[in-house]
Formats: sequence, C-alpha cells, structure tokens
Amino acid sequence: MPRPGPDAELRPADLHASLSDPLLEVMNFLNEVTLRYPEAISFGPGRPYDGFFEVDRIGGYLDTYTRHLEQDLGRSPEEVRTALFQYGRTNGQIHDLVARTIAHDDGIHTDPSAVVVTVGCQEAMLLVLRALIAGPDDVLLVTDPGYVGITGAARLLDAATVPVPEDATGLDLDALRATVRELRARGKRPRAVYVIPDFANPSGASMPTEKRHALLDLAAEEDLLLLEDNPYGFFSRTGEQRPTLKSLDTRHRVIYFGSFAKTCFPGARVGYVIADQPVIGENGERTLLADELSKIKSMVTVNTPAIAQAAIGGMLLAHGCRLRDANKDLIEFYRGNMEALLAALARHLPQDRWGVRWNVPDGGFFLVLTLPFAADNAFLEESARDHGVIWTPMSYFYLGDGGERQLRLSASYLTPERIEEGVRRLAAHIIQRITRGQ
Amino acid sequence: MPRPGPDAELRPADLHASLSDPLLEVMNFLNEVTLRYPEAISFGPGRPYDGFFEVDRIGGYLDTYTRHLEQDLGRSPEEVRTALFQYGRTNGQIHDLVARTIAHDDGIHTDPSAVVVTVGCQEAMLLVLRALIAGPDDVLLVTDPGYVGITGAARLLDAATVPVPEDATGLDLDALRATVRELRARGKRPRAVYVIPDFANPSGASMPTEKRHALLDLAAEEDLLLLEDNPYGFFSRTGEQRPTLKSLDTRHRVIYFGSFAKTCFPGARVGYVIADQPVIGENGERTLLADELSKIKSMVTVNTPAIAQAAIGGMLLAHGCRLRDANKDLIEFYRGNMEALLAALARHLPQDRWGVRWNVPDGGFFLVLTLPFAADNAFLEESARDHGVIWTPMSYFYLGDGGERQLRLSASYLTPERIEEGVRRLAAHIIQRITRGQ
Repeated sequence: MPRPGPDAELRPADLHASLSDPLLEVMNFLNEVTLRYPEAISFGPGRPYDGFFEVDRIGGYLDTYTRHLEQDLGRSPEEVRTALFQYGRTNGQIHDLVARTIAHDDGIHTDPSAVVVTVGCQEAMLLVLRALIAGPDDVLLVTDPGYVGITGAARLLDAATVPVPEDATGLDLDALRATVRELRARGKRPRAVYVIPDFANPSGASMPTEKRHALLDLAAEEDLLLLEDNPYGFFSRTGEQRPTLKSLDTRHRVIYFGSFAKTCFPGARVGYVIADQPVIGENGERTLLADELSKIKSMVTVNTPAIAQAAIGGMLLAHGCRLRDANKDLIEFYRGNMEALLAALARHLPQDRWGVRWNVPDGGFFLVLTLPFAADNAFLEESARDHGVIWTPMSYFYLGDGGERQLRLSASYLTPERIEEGVRRLAAHIIQRITRGQ
Repeated sequence: MPRPGPDAELRPADLHASLSDPLLEVMNFLNEVTLRYPEAISFGPGRPYDGFFEVDRIGGYLDTYTRHLEQDLGRSPEEVRTALFQYGRTNGQIHDLVARTIAHDDGIHTDPSAVVVTVGCQEAMLLVLRALIAGPDDVLLVTDPGYVGITGAARLLDAATVPVPEDATGLDLDALRATVRELRARGKRPRAVYVIPDFANPSGASMPTEKRHALLDLAAEEDLLLLEDNPYGFFSRTGEQRPTLKSLDTRHRVIYFGSFAKTCFPGARVGYVIADQPVIGENGERTLLADELSKIKSMVTVNTPAIAQAAIGGMLLAHGCRLRDANKDLIEFYRGNMEALLAALARHLPQDRWGVRWNVPDGGFFLVLTLPFAADNAFLEESARDHGVIWTPMSYFYLGDGGERQLRLSASYLTPERIEEGVRRLAAHIIQRITRGQ
C-alpha cells in the first residue's frame, strides 16, 4: 500500500555551502580523471610509496603492542582486552609513545598530556580550527598556495580564511605582518597561521632556519598561533635537516600537527597534534589546549580506533620510537625520486626558455612547473587523454587568483623509470602546445 | 637567549562556545567520578560487555578479510597491500559487506553506494548534520531527553537544536507536528528529527510499530527527514523485534545510523550511515546524499582506517554477514542483565511508593528511575563516596529543564551479581534519604 506524501528530494541549495565549494571537489576531480585514464602516469596525488610495506607485518605490530601492555606496563589480560576492545581515552592511548618518538626524531620535547592522537592529521586540523574559531570575526591565515585539507576544514566550520603569499622560502613574513594589522584594523581577529615549513604542499618551498626564528618572533609580537604541519619533514633531498618550529618554540606559539601516514602507513589513519598552550579559566584554573580539544574530539570520532593505535604503537615500539632510522630506505627512495624528477625535467624541458621553469625543492613530494600558458582543466584533460600523463593544476591550491600557469608534480609513489617516461610525455605535450602557437 | 614577546595564553572566552557548554562535559564528568571512586559499582556508562571478546581473534579477522579480497574479489597481492596500507575510498571499502549485513539483520535493502562507512556512528552524525544544516534558520529536532552525541555534534556546528518531548512510547508525534509548524511560522526550517526508535538512550523507550508508520507519514507530510539511530536494536529483552524505520521507508525519509560498536567491538570505531536520498542539481543531475557526505568526510577523517574496516569486514565475513546470529550469546547476556536490573529494583525498592518508580524497557542498555527528590551531582557524589555506586543524572540529557528527579541506570557491562549489589547500595542510599527527610 503506497503511503501518502512525497519522496524526499534534496537540492544543493538546501545543503551546506561547503558542498557547492569547488575546493571540496579538488581531490575528487583528480580521482575521477585517474579513474577515466587508468593507464596514464599520474603525478597527481601525494600518495606515499607502499613498496616497502608487507601486509603480514600488521599482526606482528599488534603483537608487539600487546606485549608492551603486558610486559612493560604490567597490564592484566583483562586490561589488555579492554585496551584493544573497548572505547578508550579520548585523546589516545599511544600518546606517550608518540611523545617519545617526536623527542627522538624531531627535537620536540612535550609532556604526553599535550598530545592528542587523531584519525589522521585531518581530524587534528578540524579539532584545532573548531577550538580557535569562536565567532564570525575570527580568521585563519593560510599560505597561498596552500594545502586543501586546512582550507576545506575551515569551510566546514564556516571559518574565514585569508591568504598570505609565499615566496621561494615559504611564507612572506612582511606580507603576514601587514595582513594581520590590516585585519585587526578592520575589526577582525587573526587567530593562527597555517604553515608547512618543510617541503610544503603544494609549492615544495622550505623556510630557512633564520626565517623560522623570525616567524616565531612575529607570532609572539602579533599574538598569533602558528599551526605547523610537518608530514614530509623526514624526506630531505639534500640531507639537511632544519629544526621544526615546535622544537624552537619557547612561548607556546606553535600547535604542531604530525602524521604517521608517510612514516608508518596511511591505512592506519593515525595522526596527532601537540597542543601545549595553557588555557586559563576565570578562577585561574589551568588546562591545556589538548584538554579542550578532547571535548571536541568526543563529538567528532569519540576516540581514535584502538586497533589502529595498536598497529602504529607496535610499529613505534618495534623501532625503539625512532622512526627516522626506520625510514632510512624510504627517505632514500623519495630522495631518489625527487632527483629523478629534476633530472628528467632538465633532460626534456628547457629551464627558463619560453617561460618554462620549475623550482628545485630541498625535499618532500612536490615540485611546481611554470608554463607560458594556462595549466587548466582543459590542458589536463588533453594531457591525460592524448599523452597519458596526469598532474594537478596549481590554481586549485589558491584561495583566489593565482597559479593559472602552474602545475604541481608529485613523484612520491612512482618509480624513477615511470617518472622519466611521465616527464617525457608531459614535455612533449608542453612543447607541442608552445610550438603550435608560434 | 630568551626571545621577545609573551607566552601564548588562551582564555575560554576566546575559544569556541561549545567548549564552555556543559553538554560537552557530561561524558568527562562521569569518567572523572569513576576514576575517583574506582571501587564503586557503576551504572554510568553504556559500555558494551567485553567478556566474549578474545584479543587473539583480531589477527584471524584481518586474515579472513585479506583472503576475501584475494579469493572472492580476485585481487592481486599488490592490490591487497594497497587496500590495507594506503589511503582508501572516502566512503569506505566494506560498504558492500555492510549492505549485505543490514539486509540480513535489519530488513534494510540498500545499494552499497548509499553506505558511508565512518569512524563510529559519531562521525556519521557530524557528517549528516553538516550537510543538512546550511544556515542559521536550519533547525535539528531531537527527542527530549536525548542522546548527548547528537546534540554535542550540533553544538560544534553552531546548529540550533529544538527539543521534542518523549512519552512512554518514544517521540510524542503531536508535539512533533506542533513544534514543526510553530518553527515554520517563525521562519525557521526544521530539517530533521533525531530518534532512537528501539530502546532509546537514555530513556529506554521504544516505539510501537504503528507509531513508526505514523512517524514516517508525518515526515512525508511535513517534509522532514528522520535520523534513525539504532545501536541497540538487537538487544530485545522480550524477544520481540520491531521493524526499523528504514526498513519501512518507501520515500527516502530516513537517514539510518548504524554502529558495530555493540555488535562487533568498539575498539574498531566503525559505524556507518545509509544516505540514499536523491540530491538533484540545477541541470537535473542526480547524486545521492551519500556522495555529498563523502565530500565532507574527506575534510573530517579522509577515510575510515583500512585496518579497522578490515577487522570488522573479516568479522562480518566470518559470520556470513549475519550479526544477529553471531550475537546470540550477547543478546542473551544483555537480556539477562536487564531482567536482573528489573528484579533487583523490585527486590530493594518499592515501585510507586514515596514517588519512587521506574520504567520497564523492552530491551537495550538503559532504564530510568524516578525519585521523590533531586538526582543531582551532589546526590551522585554521595552515592559514589558513601555507598559505592555510580549512575547518571537524567537532567544531563535534557536540552532545557527536565529529569531533575530522575537517574539513568545502565546495566550493559556488569554481571548480574554486581547489578544486584549495586541496586542494593543505591536503594539503601535512596531509602536513607527518604526516611531521613520524614
């Protein structure tokens, strides 16, 4: 018997504005082109290389973590069962192992109580933005070009984002200071600046050490927080390791985002945030920002899956909480890939001729190639269809105009042979377009 | 050398208002009392019983899932590695197994493309609210008393929530219709109603089947969506199984939230939402609400951890995608616990004397006890400290006033012996208070 009343039908205009924002479709578009041209060589996604990973090891990591609970922490079998089976501590159960690891690897010394273990770094960004963006005058500053994950999270919360330009050494500090003052003059409250100091996504830029000190000073002078995201810090091409902002932070100015997606494996979706900022209540009672984030996390994911934490915890323990050593082969692999990409570009394209040029990142996954014409969706479609090569338009990563003639190349998960062939195809397409126009 | 500029210090007033909302502190308060009185018998949390769970089985479930990928789906070793190791499909990789399971267990027949696999049901609620609450006039209706997770998620998004009272058979439909019309008259847009039709948290109320049909009709007539949450549906005390709203839904009125926390294990944090509502674009192009949720999820957790999905997927496969059968012992356990709770109450307290009374839920984890005096934090503290028993004030679950003389008892993870002893202690405390006052 049919029931009265109409079928539910929704219109995009009835749904939250973020869903009609092209920003949220960037990653989906890339996936979609990749699906349509599965044979194309893709410089699109910043996927980690998985060739060193063996599925069989997951069980071993779980065992290592279980033994740690039993032998190192003296937990009873019932307590071990609860740790793996039940709901757990909102801010995570491997926070102490995370604190130990970043002390070894990144020079960051923090109390485990300031660590929030999250479902990937993405959740960490959402939690921090939710805590800091309290009203319509609050503004998040982001590098322009910038990472889609942070601007996307801001869109979900209707949080205003204001771009700050980058130069070859990352964030432009003069522009940052001017932007902050101009926002304040307009009654806005700049809360924090999102930055990837090492091998940024998408630009590949890195901040020199002195600029890091200057940024920390600027943050203190202008009363800003710095949101430091460091997914690629291990993967130096040159061997040089610069100090993280957080390791230089003596004034609680830095909220530090970390991820095990690139240094362990993405399938666990375990990330974290260090939020050691004091929060001082009306009666002088002190908590940490991490404690406040816990309240938000309890309404987002309740807690990070125990089984995922156990796998990552076991992996950390198996390597003595020293991931930099554990990643030696992977660091070498990514170094080799970036070198291969640079060499292939030099072989197949003329640097600085016809307006073609590219930057030479000190490490990481990404490089930016500048063309004398628009690197837009139409050119991407042609690249994939006619030349079998995929990349990302840089314009996707700008909040307003910018990057129209640039594209991002990621070489993280390809082999050197595929990189060479992919660049050969891309160069042929570019040169064909240039010479056809002459 | 000390650097210039002050330390970062935050004030609660600078942070998002949700952090100062007592609602978000409810769960933390319970934890805190429990930590201070670890010897007390706690009827507080709705924790699943974990006595049937064996840690060793996790490896077996992962193997089962891996074999399924290899043998049933014909995946190569490299593809299996990618499935467990890499970032994955935003809406999940066990969506087909979930669809098969709810067809068997809950009479819900849905295309797997309408399933979004989430980090617990909590993430699912956040995604749906973010999609539906598009502006300041949009309102979520919630049962009063109601589940803290949905109102908490609404707070994070600054979404207005309006209470609709419950009676002994769940949501009061006349009040719902009146509230919807009154909101519309005030220029508001009621978007959806959150409801737990089976063994509600916190009230224990269940909707009769005829009322379910009437609610579906009302939703069509008033153009509402129903957010059906069904964490406890298996756990009938009487053996009677009522149809889910979703299984009766012929008009895409129901968005269905499911969870494996109670039927598999909470440590995986795997839940899901069925969102089969058509979304019709300006040019007539059709997507599903699930596709829209995917865009939001990519900015919340990117995807649900592959390793957690693999564990649950393996568990579903191991039981032929029939969890109701797999949960036979657990269903019996919870049934026994609710009977033990009812029997203990009848033994130690006079139903309907002095204004003491309790409801008799048809199943689930929760029961409400009404007292002739305030069941407030002070009485809770006394209960824990002087009588060694913990429970939850019902006032926590009301959006405004309500429940001041009521408390929620959960008997889900205790043994019948502990339930008997806990009720004896609680009854002694209650009777002491009543007779002292006489």
